[in-house]
Amino acid sequence: MNKGRLFILSGPSGCGKGTVCKVLLEKNKNLKLSISATTREKRVGEIDGETYFYLSKDQFEDMIKNDELLEFNQGYSGNYYGTPKKYVFDQLEKGFDVLLEIEMNGAKNIKEKYPESIGIFLSPPSFDELLNRLRGRGRESEELIQERFLLAKEEILRVDEYKYAVINEDLNETVDTIVNIINAEKHLTSFIGNKIKSLVK
Amino acid sequence: MNKGRLFILSGPSGCGKGTVCKVLLEKNKNLKLSISATTREKRVGEIDGETYFYLSKDQFEDMIKNDELLEFNQGYSGNYYGTPKKYVFDQLEKGFDVLLEIEMNGAKNIKEKYPESIGIFLSPPSFDELLNRLRGRGRESEELIQERFLLAKEEILRVDEYKYAVINEDLNETVDTIVNIINAEKHLTSFIGNKIKSLVK
Repeated sequence: MNKGRLFILSGPSGCGKGTVCKVLLEKNKNLKLSISATTREKRVGEIDGETYFYLSKDQFEDMIKNDELLEFNQGYSGNYYGTPKKYVFDQLEKGFDVLLEIEMNGAKNIKEKYPESIGIFLSPPSFDELLNRLRGRGRESEELIQERFLLAKEEILRVDEYKYAVINEDLNETVDTIVNIINAEKHLTSFIGNKIKSLVK
Repeated sequence: MNKGRLFILSGPSGCGKGTVCKVLLEKNKNLKLSISATTREKRVGEIDGETYFYLSKDQFEDMIKNDELLEFNQGYSGNYYGTPKKYVFDQLEKGFDVLLEIEMNGAKNIKEKYPESIGIFLSPPSFDELLNRLRGRGRESEELIQERFLLAKEEILRVDEYKYAVINEDLNETVDTIVNIINAEKHLTSFIGNKIKSLVK
């Protein structure tokens, strides 16, 4: 059986990663979402092993020491967030593809640790639209929105860190394109060539 | 406007290239089939500029001299067959993708002349099925079929000359996968990255 492949979906704040990710997982049943670990408190409605793996600070720092994370970071609050290797690699071993939705610095760290991963950059269709989306969330101050907006402009110039790029103009079209990319990647000769050569034996 | 891309569909005799090619062109209206040039006589029902471009021997040899062909070969009959650059590059310039269905040596020559082309190898699902298909055509002697069959076994080991490989088990699935590959290729950052970066300006 062919092993699965790891896809990293990233892009600037407001590009629509979260929604794309949700619809993508509904459409592609062979794709499993990577589950992050965190030391922050579990909130109402969240489920251990689904929303996050909830760990103590000691447990998390042990994982860091033992190189059991693909990437991690510590938020302003002091809480850790990270991507456990084991869950990802278990799914890949079982033949599932794994999707990791992550901000751009995390994406870069993972690419360095696991170069076989395939990066997909999600771009907003325009800056007017990006500003609309950031404002539309209605949960941040105008100052923070402007900050995110400037950051997004810088982040878009980092598109070359990714193998693929999709302009997220229409949700369904974006999801279809990512499904296409996943299928195409599974037909790269570097991936499927040996299976074909084995037909001769 | 982004220029189109050149896709080369090839594979051993009996892999089903012709049928896949036909359905693929019906499904993807942005894809144009490359039209070959030949010095053989036009047959009843064939159309100049559609089935082939029909040329005299002198005209064809002038094209060879002037490097106007992506590849060419001379059949046993002495007739030339080749791929004129002009038609292919005109379509690419207009933004169409171009599909070239060709046997494996021709495919290799084109890849050398035009490395930006994207090779897709079509594999029969099994050798039993390949033998069935070769026999099912009912137009060749058993000796010739056995010859083609042995050649196909060698050709399958050349799958690594292609970027992608598709096992042609189910016609519709094969065509869908090639449509996916074409779409994925158009979302490579090396192809679409500058367009995305231009959003910032």
